[in-house]
Amino acid sequence: MIGIDTLVASAETDAATWDETGLPVDVIEAAARAGVLGLDRTTDCRGLGLTAAELGSVAERLGAVCTSLRSLLTVQGMVNAALDRWGTAEQRAQWVPALATGELLAGFAATESGAGSDLSSVTTSFEAHGSDHRISGRKLWVTFGEVADVLLVLGRSPAGLTTALVETDAPGVSVEPIHGQLGMRGARIAHIALDGVVVPADHLIAPPGFGLSHVVGTALDHGRYTIAWGCAGMARGCLADAAAHASTRVQGSAVLSEHDSVRAIVGRSWVDAAGARALCERAAEQRDAHEPSALFTTIAAKYAAARVAASVSQQAVQVLGAVGCAPGSRVGRFFRDAKVMQIIEGATEVAELQIGDYVLGGGAP
Amino acid sequence: MIGIDTLVASAETDAATWDETGLPVDVIEAAARAGVLGLDRTTDCRGLGLTAAELGSVAERLGAVCTSLRSLLTVQGMVNAALDRWGTAEQRAQWVPALATGELLAGFAATESGAGSDLSSVTTSFEAHGSDHRISGRKLWVTFGEVADVLLVLGRSPAGLTTALVETDAPGVSVEPIHGQLGMRGARIAHIALDGVVVPADHLIAPPGFGLSHVVGTALDHGRYTIAWGCAGMARGCLADAAAHASTRVQGSAVLSEHDSVRAIVGRSWVDAAGARALCERAAEQRDAHEPSALFTTIAAKYAAARVAASVSQQAVQVLGAVGCAPGSRVGRFFRDAKVMQIIEGATEVAELQIGDYVLGGGAP
Amino acid sequence: MIGIDTLVASAETDAATWDETGLPVDVIEAAARAGVLGLDRTTDCRGLGLTAAELGSVAERLGAVCTSLRSLLTVQGMVNAALDRWGTAEQRAQWVPALATGELLAGFAATESGAGSDLSSVTTSFEAHGSDHRISGRKLWVTFGEVADVLLVLGRSPAGLTTALVETDAPGVSVEPIHGQLGMRGARIAHIALDGVVVPADHLIAPPGFGLSHVVGTALDHGRYTIAWGCAGMARGCLADAAAHASTRVQGSAVLSEHDSVRAIVGRSWVDAAGARALCERAAEQRDAHEPSALFTTIAAKYAAARVAASVSQQAVQVLGAVGCAPGSRVGRFFRDAKVMQIIEGATEVAELQIGDYVLGGGAP
Amino acid sequence: MIGIDTLVASAETDAATWDETGLPVDVIEAAARAGVLGLDRTTDCRGLGLTAAELGSVAERLGAVCTSLRSLLTVQGMVNAALDRWGTAEQRAQWVPALATGELLAGFAATESGAGSDLSSVTTSFEAHGSDHRISGRKLWVTFGEVADVLLVLGRSPAGLTTALVETDAPGVSVEPIHGQLGMRGARIAHIALDGVVVPADHLIAPPGFGLSHVVGTALDHGRYTIAWGCAGMARGCLADAAAHASTRVQGSAVLSEHDSVRAIVGRSWVDAAGARALCERAAEQRDAHEPSALFTTIAAKYAAARVAASVSQQAVQVLGAVGCAPGSRVGRFFRDAKVMQIIEGATEVAELQIGDYVLGGGAP
Repeated sequence: MIGIDTLVASAETDAATWDETGLPVDVIEAAARAGVLGLDRTTDCRGLGLTAAELGSVAERLGAVCTSLRSLLTVQGMVNAALDRWGTAEQRAQWVPALATGELLAGFAATESGAGSDLSSVTTSFEAHGSDHRISGRKLWVTFGEVADVLLVLGRSPAGLTTALVETDAPGVSVEPIHGQLGMRGARIAHIALDGVVVPADHLIAPPGFGLSHVVGTALDHGRYTIAWGCAGMARGCLADAAAHASTRVQGSAVLSEHDSVRAIVGRSWVDAAGARALCERAAEQRDAHEPSALFTTIAAKYAAARVAASVSQQAVQVLGAVGCAPGSRVGRFFRDAKVMQIIEGATEVAELQIGDYVLGGGAP
Repeated sequence: MIGIDTLVASAETDAATWDETGLPVDVIEAAARAGVLGLDRTTDCRGLGLTAAELGSVAERLGAVCTSLRSLLTVQGMVNAALDRWGTAEQRAQWVPALATGELLAGFAATESGAGSDLSSVTTSFEAHGSDHRISGRKLWVTFGEVADVLLVLGRSPAGLTTALVETDAPGVSVEPIHGQLGMRGARIAHIALDGVVVPADHLIAPPGFGLSHVVGTALDHGRYTIAWGCAGMARGCLADAAAHASTRVQGSAVLSEHDSVRAIVGRSWVDAAGARALCERAAEQRDAHEPSALFTTIAAKYAAARVAASVSQQAVQVLGAVGCAPGSRVGRFFRDAKVMQIIEGATEVAELQIGDYVLGGGAP
Repeated sequence: MIGIDTLVASAETDAATWDETGLPVDVIEAAARAGVLGLDRTTDCRGLGLTAAELGSVAERLGAVCTSLRSLLTVQGMVNAALDRWGTAEQRAQWVPALATGELLAGFAATESGAGSDLSSVTTSFEAHGSDHRISGRKLWVTFGEVADVLLVLGRSPAGLTTALVETDAPGVSVEPIHGQLGMRGARIAHIALDGVVVPADHLIAPPGFGLSHVVGTALDHGRYTIAWGCAGMARGCLADAAAHASTRVQGSAVLSEHDSVRAIVGRSWVDAAGARALCERAAEQRDAHEPSALFTTIAAKYAAARVAASVSQQAVQVLGAVGCAPGSRVGRFFRDAKVMQIIEGATEVAELQIGDYVLGGGAP
Repeated sequence: MIGIDTLVASAETDAATWDETGLPVDVIEAAARAGVLGLDRTTDCRGLGLTAAELGSVAERLGAVCTSLRSLLTVQGMVNAALDRWGTAEQRAQWVPALATGELLAGFAATESGAGSDLSSVTTSFEAHGSDHRISGRKLWVTFGEVADVLLVLGRSPAGLTTALVETDAPGVSVEPIHGQLGMRGARIAHIALDGVVVPADHLIAPPGFGLSHVVGTALDHGRYTIAWGCAGMARGCLADAAAHASTRVQGSAVLSEHDSVRAIVGRSWVDAAGARALCERAAEQRDAHEPSALFTTIAAKYAAARVAASVSQQAVQVLGAVGCAPGSRVGRFFRDAKVMQIIEGATEVAELQIGDYVLGGGAP
């Protein structure tokens, strides 16, 4: 995929800059042209029609160069997967191609101050307003929220947890971009306040009450999948930098790789990364085969890959030493990004319990 | 495979006893009848002709119930793989079927007091004795050495490192069984002294000088492969015991699995085990496809699986508490066995360096 | 203390044997003569009147050579500390000197099948029987239960959790020695059934209802303290063996300690051990100063030292390799013993929560 | 110490800002007025004459709020300790009080592109220039190099490794401030080029050839000591934030601290931090008692504390979740800073070997 190659090459050059400035609009447009925003939507929906395995491979390649760019793929994919799965025919026709091609950029607006790992406690309110709905609340950490045209918002209506699309140019939407967070600094993250925003009835996705269990559930599953592969890419990128540094860096009279400790780190990290990547591959196979266990395997793959991205990036910074801490260092950037990966879309400690429950319930092979 | 099922069932009942008494001869004979001693030899050689993947699966099943029984498969397989690969047509005809069927039991006699991780420093001597060879030395930790009929011995001849088959009923062979070691207690381990043992020229395997690099190399590769799968089985067995205990054990008013810490252990351990097992599967695929990288992947799989067997068994003993420390406990036995797995056939710290070298050399994907 | 020196010397020679046979009676008698059974009882009570710091030092020295011998100190100390603290003047006069001198050996009988980490769920029953009490239940894992003359038994009377002394020659007491458990194999561990055992009223220790919170609480605190120091000793012993082996063992042409990986293990283990030992020292200071926080610090010290004993013994076995797995190896024995230390007298996962609670409650410095 | 209290209070408010802007000059001046730049210099030298224990306590307090501010203490202390120990009477009179009071700010200019962990391979050249010396080279990562008045420079003269003071207003000195590195972002770090800088003979510290072993050795020992305490402070700060968040943050219907996993993290982290801090205390005692082993214990304390700062900060970010990744978060900042602490003044993997060597050499208790 020539467009992806070009995108990867530009990220290799510029990702450190994007980490400071935010991903520029022209890069987002280039990603859209390359098909990154609709990789696994069908060609009927103007996506590329990739398999889960192919989708994973692209996420891995982008993840290996720029977490923020890979996050663009992730968030657009999350929202569109949910729309494609739970939207009506009209909704799907209206939104899915527009998101798949990048005519519209999407944000996923679920997290609140009191609702992170436990989204069932969101307090954003949906109130009837004639046949429309009036939405008020404050959503945090919306990836690409600064530039999103439309948000998938999770809130609470009288019928229960409910999701709707909110266009960001609607009155009552205010966007507060975030700068200086730990990682994913290029991802144009924003907090977004919704102050009595009115949306028409046809903007509700799935019936009221099905917002978390179905719509958001689909989005999170999709998000975890591409994050998992992105983290596998981060580990691969860190290993490449560590190996290159170890093979060429001279300290005193010795190349760094002559030190057992360095080679052992590389060996150990490679095995760790390979194990996590294998879980990503298994998730891909199960997704492409539509196996019910894919949901569980995706959780496990995301958990394992995020953990590996964190540990391998730490080791890589250690191997590179001051060079790894220097401005613009990929391993230093991934060290920061990887920590965030252990928190979003299913924190490490929550995932361990989910996996444990599944295993204790007899569900795991 | 009906014979394997029976063998597994008997190990489930008796493995704790075998750990005290040593694997009884009738169990060894049952294993032979079930084909366990020649699983991947061709049917022409009176083996079962299994693929590497199938061989791995049997090693995993046996490993999940009894490390010593799985070690029988491993050592017989190691010696026979080396004979089948490097023996002359006459040697192969003489020995391979006999080992594949269990008519003869084999021991692998390489380790010495000053030569463990570094086998190139063995001091066992091969001296010309007419057209025969006279062998003297002391070999340690020979798995099933107590009952072996024939040993593959690594020593040093004027031409370099050399291997020969030594029949244990030859004059000068003395066998000292070992009791009370940390793990693999059922594996009839012995130290074996060779005091001027004379072997005919046709007992040399491969030309002198090729003993370590070729003959022993083949044996170790085969051994690491079945150990890797055996360790994957150990982890699986430990997880099963931990999950069963956690699901049923009541402490105070709560079932153990109601504690987050227990469920988190189960979740984490499952993911660790799944990652290591995936490396075993990859090694299987590469072996069956005769890919050169299979050698490397086997090292990585053995390293990862032994590490996981160690960590999962530790966690499982912790979950089971006093029950895990009780006489006859499977997880307690595997806790001891798994430590040994991190030492034999390529110690953890050596494997890390080998893997690191390979990655640094650009050989890993 | 000349008696301790002699005891340590004999353990250095014989601990591996004791691990197989159980601690012989003459060694128990020698320990009694050396004062080990009453180290911190006052001289009025025929103890040695040692400070907590001195008690810790002896526990560390014994722990460095034989966990079972150190456990003798621990269990006798636990029961006697509880008696000395909560017994009436008559009870104290009757029992404390007898235990301090070893005229009587004590067992601590609290754990049951359904009551390990949560002792409040013991089901052993105390029923009124005239002015006496009739006790029935089954106690597990009683250290030195095989040879104990008197047991401190925790059970449930109508007034709540209650403790009594039970003499083992009383009708209805049956002792089932345990062999082949994971660790502490020399500690003459037994399960003990109490079948309607009648004890006189003056054998109750503290009023009914105060058995767990006060009597057992005092015993456990004392036990954790000497276990902590014993574990510090185990780590020290493992480090000594690892360092000695690394400094002398030649593999190929290199002494083992020339490998960075070995030296790094030694360095890392030393620091880990030093940190845990420092917590033991802090617990000693707080105990000698009668600071209320001593209870908490003792829990932390025991947790830290048991964890370090486990990790350092694992590393030490790895450094010693086959030698560490050989029959009679100290590091192999400690590898087994240390796992038990992470379970008894406050399992690792329970201690983490206790410490966390204390810190969250603002109690920790 | 009232000045320290004020400084700590201002850092609590402003450290996040300083992390973006660099430590402002007025804060450096306030630190100087508070005595932070000469804490352990004698009062004769216009220092505060603190003991090592007291010095450590201040470093811990500053470390708990701002790594960059604590680094100011560290670097000024390093250079001045070296001057005070190895300078002539004239040199000491000229420089030590000026540095102790902050009239002059010092930088430590040792690291080069090819000389980090192994400083013996520096290539900065000292050439005779009449009775003066002409110095050329490029020094990296000079903490507070952007504002330093005088640098302690390590280079190579014909007589061997040599140190000199270089005033930064001398011709040929050019300072390149660094922005955007992983951690210590407030510490005004600069790369500094020396292009034929001429210094008079009286600017050489210690005779030529003694620069690394003596002068730099003294500086590094001092630096490691205050870094160790600073890291102990970082761990304490992270624990405080984690505990506060866990105790107050509601997710769904539960306070975060109701989750076992959170309390276990807090418990475990507290013990880890306490162990490392205890090694800092031991280093303090040995320094104040002028024990030769203080050098070793300081290495161990720095290693342990940096490792703990890294692990506790990772855990704390995990507990705080998105709040820990938010702009201005202390735990997120310390997560970045702590990684740097594992690299500077003796990288983790180098320290492990040094400690291992010492233990293997029989030097450790």
